[in-house]
Amino acid sequence: VRGTPRSLTELAPRECLRLLGSVSVGRLVFTTRALPAIRPACHVIDGSDLIIGSDADVPAFASAGPGLGPVLAYQADAIDPLSRLGWSVVVVGPARQVTDPGRIAACHQLLAPWVAGTRDHVIAIPSNMITGFRLAASG
Amino acid sequence: VRGTPRSLTELAPRECLRLLGSVSVGRLVFTTRALPAIRPACHVIDGSDLIIGSDADVPAFASAGPGLGPVLAYQADAIDPLSRLGWSVVVVGPARQVTDPGRIAACHQLLAPWVAGTRDHVIAIPSNMITGFRLAASG
Repeated sequence: VRGTPRSLTELAPRECLRLLGSVSVGRLVFTTRALPAIRPACHVIDGSDLIIGSDADVPAFASAGPGLGPVLAYQADAIDPLSRLGWSVVVVGPARQVTDPGRIAACHQLLAPWVAGTRDHVIAIPSNMITGFRLAASG
Repeated sequence: VRGTPRSLTELAPRECLRLLGSVSVGRLVFTTRALPAIRPACHVIDGSDLIIGSDADVPAFASAGPGLGPVLAYQADAIDPLSRLGWSVVVVGPARQVTDPGRIAACHQLLAPWVAGTRDHVIAIPSNMITGFRLAASG
């Protein structure tokens, strides 16, 4: 229950990746108009990339030079609202907007459409900079 | 189901506040080492403030001058993992670290402890800059 002592344990990258792959919805974290922004999105793990489907307009993609991508974060968690136990995982890394039509089509196969009538963006982030923790009951 | 058409509807601030108050766990979004960061946290609405209990070390609190607070974001959502329908709410605003011992004690009464053995920070953000949307089945 809420008042129970709990422990926070950092997770190994492999375990973080496994947990991230066990859910399909997370949150894309970026900056817009110099303010922190966050928006729910959906994801799949595709080889060494995390593939994100999002309706968010991420301004940094426009300002980044060719071949460069803004550093974004993507977070997913599963935390019980009552016990507040569970896990959280964050991937941080340089993001690329997927523009190759073939790869977009393949990603759309993996990612169910997010919002009807909205042009979903497909974003790829290397999945190697991944951290996470587990909140567990202690004692 | 996942493939069902859905509509995204922006929510009025009053409805956003009601939804935010209906859950107790969300995510604090900030910047650390020039990188986007996000960490689960717990919250309550206290008058015109959103009160956040967090174990996150938010570096911007140290660099902000007296009386100034960094602009942080706080997000909560309830999105069904299968249908991907639900809502998301974000509060953005200048955050203050609550340092008054009396108010910290009162906030700790409202917020259940987040992590045992960690010094929880208590952070206040005005709740008036609140936005959100609902994803609903359409058609």
